[in-house]
Amino acid sequence: MRATRGELASLLVHRRSFTVTSETRRQVVDIRSQVEEAVLTAGVRNGVALANCLHTTCSVVITDSAGESIDAIVRLMRSVIDENQAYRHNDLRWSDCERGNADAHLRASLLGHGVTIGIADGALALEACQSILLAEWDGPRSRTVDVQVLGA
Amino acid sequence: MRATRGELASLLVHRRSFTVTSETRRQVVDIRSQVEEAVLTAGVRNGVALANCLHTTCSVVITDSAGESIDAIVRLMRSVIDENQAYRHNDLRWSDCERGNADAHLRASLLGHGVTIGIADGALALEACQSILLAEWDGPRSRTVDVQVLGA
Amino acid sequence: MRATRGELASLLVHRRSFTVTSETRRQVVDIRSQVEEAVLTAGVRNGVALANCLHTTCSVVITDSAGESIDAIVRLMRSVIDENQAYRHNDLRWSDCERGNADAHLRASLLGHGVTIGIADGALALEACQSILLAEWDGPRSRTVDVQVLGA
Repeated sequence: MRATRGELASLLVHRRSFTVTSETRRQVVDIRSQVEEAVLTAGVRNGVALANCLHTTCSVVITDSAGESIDAIVRLMRSVIDENQAYRHNDLRWSDCERGNADAHLRASLLGHGVTIGIADGALALEACQSILLAEWDGPRSRTVDVQVLGA
Repeated sequence: MRATRGELASLLVHRRSFTVTSETRRQVVDIRSQVEEAVLTAGVRNGVALANCLHTTCSVVITDSAGESIDAIVRLMRSVIDENQAYRHNDLRWSDCERGNADAHLRASLLGHGVTIGIADGALALEACQSILLAEWDGPRSRTVDVQVLGA
Repeated sequence: MRATRGELASLLVHRRSFTVTSETRRQVVDIRSQVEEAVLTAGVRNGVALANCLHTTCSVVITDSAGESIDAIVRLMRSVIDENQAYRHNDLRWSDCERGNADAHLRASLLGHGVTIGIADGALALEACQSILLAEWDGPRSRTVDVQVLGA
């Protein structure tokens, strides 16, 4: 085991939101640099960062940064969650949503609305290959990602 | 980017548990108001809240609050995870569990045991459409949800 | 509701990493005791612990500790994510990765890179049946799990 020594300090809490714009219905956008910027701005050396999306038809997830891996996630979600099924949410007799985006809600729930990451020595505790992605399932749209930073 | 200023303060830690009772085998219950109440009681203005279930056959997940979206999650999990497959966990030669709930364990793991949410200005950092759901996969049962609040 | 009283205290932040070695391509290893040891070492009585893997082809997830439940997760991920599909990531015309592990990346993203758990009275806020698992999708390999502990 490798460990850093515990630190007794006052708590610092910082919140930052940023916008991600998608250009197609399904798109995956790397937001790691924006999350890193929020951690730097917070001035927290050791702690945690939450990156959550404030929507129910997109996800925030950690995955490999290679382009073809990202494409594969989009294809996987398409194969697991059928967009053409007879969802009540897409039927105006049951739902007041006119977007026909039931598949997007399901993909968002299955991948999750956000991630929690350690902060060590002022940086995100992630390896270089670990991207933080906003996965858009119902674009093109403008999305808000909320970063909450806690620590010392 | 929009940001709130960091605050240097003493740490406040608060834990609260509540019970959710399901009436059918598979049921989704909105627990956002109970999590909000735990945050209010904690008196934390800025920080994070964890809502985790203390079980392995139910999930806590953030999703759209519309009734027909919730139904769709139950149906999705049924289509991805076959309840009638020959699971060893449901076979008394391999397992001492008599509930026949292997599918419930798998659904719980896939959707996740809990969520982590920011707290900003004393409220959960969620939009109105984002419900926090306890997804029951092996009811009817009584479940404990544990809310841990940290912040200042 | 049952609640513990909030505590005003100085923040303690502690980080600990440990290594998990897998012996086969797909393997699930219980790491709860290592996470518990990191919490004990941190000396945090109340707070949160993050257990995240620093890789994109394995997952950290909470699930039932019974052996046959663990086997079922491996089989589920195999049925949801086909390892023999024509992934670009496995095609050297598209990718510089020679491991042919596109399925591992997808399984890792779907189950998630880590978990966040409350700490109450110096112990993880988990029931006895809740294991913390490192799910290896591209072994045999040596993996790093990063535990970040915050609290008082």
